[in-house]
Amino acid sequence: MKSSNFNRRRFLQASGAAAIWIPTSVRGYTTAEIESFFVDGEMQVDVSKWELDTPALCVDLDLLETNLAKMQATMGANGIASRPHAKTHKCPVIARMQIDTGSVGICTAKVSEAEVMFRNGIEEILMTTTNVTPTKINRAMSLAEECPGFVQATDSMDNARLLSEAAVARNLVADVVVDVDPGMGRTGTPPGQPALNLAQLVDQLPGLRFRGMLSYDGASQHVAGFAARRARTLEAMAPAADTLELLQRSGLRTDIFSGGGTGTYNIDHEVSGLTDVQVGSYVFMDAQYLEIGGEQDDTVYSDFEPSLTILATVLNDQYAGRATSDAGAKACTINRPWPVVKGETDISYTSGSDEFGTIRYGENASRTYQVGDKLELIVSHCDPVVNLYDHIYAIRNDRVEAIWRVAGRGMSA
Amino acid sequence: MKSSNFNRRRFLQASGAAAIWIPTSVRGYTTAEIESFFVDGEMQVDVSKWELDTPALCVDLDLLETNLAKMQATMGANGIASRPHAKTHKCPVIARMQIDTGSVGICTAKVSEAEVMFRNGIEEILMTTTNVTPTKINRAMSLAEECPGFVQATDSMDNARLLSEAAVARNLVADVVVDVDPGMGRTGTPPGQPALNLAQLVDQLPGLRFRGMLSYDGASQHVAGFAARRARTLEAMAPAADTLELLQRSGLRTDIFSGGGTGTYNIDHEVSGLTDVQVGSYVFMDAQYLEIGGEQDDTVYSDFEPSLTILATVLNDQYAGRATSDAGAKACTINRPWPVVKGETDISYTSGSDEFGTIRYGENASRTYQVGDKLELIVSHCDPVVNLYDHIYAIRNDRVEAIWRVAGRGMSA
Repeated sequence: MKSSNFNRRRFLQASGAAAIWIPTSVRGYTTAEIESFFVDGEMQVDVSKWELDTPALCVDLDLLETNLAKMQATMGANGIASRPHAKTHKCPVIARMQIDTGSVGICTAKVSEAEVMFRNGIEEILMTTTNVTPTKINRAMSLAEECPGFVQATDSMDNARLLSEAAVARNLVADVVVDVDPGMGRTGTPPGQPALNLAQLVDQLPGLRFRGMLSYDGASQHVAGFAARRARTLEAMAPAADTLELLQRSGLRTDIFSGGGTGTYNIDHEVSGLTDVQVGSYVFMDAQYLEIGGEQDDTVYSDFEPSLTILATVLNDQYAGRATSDAGAKACTINRPWPVVKGETDISYTSGSDEFGTIRYGENASRTYQVGDKLELIVSHCDPVVNLYDHIYAIRNDRVEAIWRVAGRGMSA
Repeated sequence: MKSSNFNRRRFLQASGAAAIWIPTSVRGYTTAEIESFFVDGEMQVDVSKWELDTPALCVDLDLLETNLAKMQATMGANGIASRPHAKTHKCPVIARMQIDTGSVGICTAKVSEAEVMFRNGIEEILMTTTNVTPTKINRAMSLAEECPGFVQATDSMDNARLLSEAAVARNLVADVVVDVDPGMGRTGTPPGQPALNLAQLVDQLPGLRFRGMLSYDGASQHVAGFAARRARTLEAMAPAADTLELLQRSGLRTDIFSGGGTGTYNIDHEVSGLTDVQVGSYVFMDAQYLEIGGEQDDTVYSDFEPSLTILATVLNDQYAGRATSDAGAKACTINRPWPVVKGETDISYTSGSDEFGTIRYGENASRTYQVGDKLELIVSHCDPVVNLYDHIYAIRNDRVEAIWRVAGRGMSA
């Protein structure tokens, strides 16, 4: 296929790095075109985010860095560490930024995510899901052989024995934490005696090294209102905290007690013994988290900035009260609340249709759109949205500064 | 990373093509491993679908072929063609099967999908969405230069002029159909005089060749009950049919009037002048379509077979009344109705959690699951589910026969 922007690109390249600044635009560069503008990792021309072909997933670097700094400051003040969950961003570049700003490592949900993070230079990885099939156990043990900082979870005695056998077969001692259920009944072993039994078994098995516990209280993260959220998570996490004490009283040495998340990041240090917080969404934020309210602001959770947006283009403006864009369910997911049109008021956006987004104007809509206009959407729920894209455009002052590969995209296995 | 299944693979390879048949399994091959079993496109060993690493997206070839044959037979009996929508499967292999069984071409929703289909040997492509930005218009015109069977849609006079200018700049005459809105207000021009004006402009513009119309009545496809669905779509499509007559009376030659879909495939031939049906989901089916009821069977839409499934593995069985699997929203989407556990009764499945699926047992549940057990899910809504996966395993008699790349995955631009 021929270059589709030959003349424009030649013009831009001829003009070198001088500012070509197009604040509103009906243009659009593909990822391949923009990649061709990079030499030794440096952009040779200025490309505004408004010039990107759409739908495009973008992260604002200033806002992302603000979020990283806020987390680092809060963790420091609270005397606790962060171990961010990479299932949110699936980007080794962001994992590296997190570790460089003080995180003790990252979490992953899947062994395929852990593999791709390690292959991209991340060496402290806690996999929070128990591997149950021989294939996944083998993959995890292969990773453990190469990556001394890899820690696995287990939640049953049978599983612990399988892990130990696989490790022994490789002359390996694999680092393991016990996953303790905070009352969700989803994963993990029940707290108390069952967890103690499992921890003692892990400690005794020849192929395993007992490192501690994890307990992820997912059900509390989106509870609206800071006080209610605090009360709920402290109650939910109490049995896990008691379990930690039980383990320690039994003589087990625990150096990890991992849990918590973005919704409770400034509460989790009140959980006795918790060593690190598995925050994920704070890097990007999304419409779901904006709704829950914060400690200072009860209506909007404004602790972190919404850095992740989808750029979309208006395709049709012919029908009263609405317009149609090119970002539907395949670009936005159908999570609720729906995406938020950034910088505008009384304009709603729905992405229930696979291929098209629907813009609807309220009585006090701040603007209307014409065909070719672009708009920017704060994503509904960051994790599954990121999982739709192969690349994230890294933006600063509305200009493209880098293109990050979503190296873990689609890695659900 | 070392091979994670070295011993098993060596054993299987040493045994050549002899049947290694493992009907239930806690094993799991990765896509890369299975690809290594293919020589010249032929599998050298038998791998059961139950041995796949999970989550895995599978299509049953016998069921897929049954669906293709059923569509071909119905279209033949009704004297109308099919022009299947490739946005559903995003697989060139399936597009080729559709054309080989009588379809006149395929549709795509995005120019990136059209490009990838053409690069993979598909030469009759109707792009159903209007391209509005210079980049997308350029991409479409580049494709038109190379692919004589590429037809584009337009829905406004301004857009038609832009398309013509872009074509003229390339010394090209581009094939165009007018998109007519069937009352959804989403895309297209209104029927009647506005559509006639647009069609006449397209016919006159130097860079464009007028080919006809499309009108996709998406709102009728999932109406429950055959009679209600028939009444609604015939009413919704009447203005488009009248518009076609208006165009023809004005002297315009139309050889395409494309519309309809899987829900109305056996109704669409009643729309006067319709030339071809844009069926998509019929190849795979899904829980959403199963619900709408058919002409013969009012409770289940059994015209086509659910060929597309997700394989999942049980991760946790410790909590009463439920089990947890490894296929959550990132593997299944959160579309409703939820995925259906194939072959079982009174067992529900929800995928509201990003990483985990929840299995719940009713009073008359046909079975319970243990850690490591695999289960098969009929997908909720096929289009966005396919868009999550890089590969589809093609299965016959529960054995892996091929691995198909979802070449158009993520191509929302």
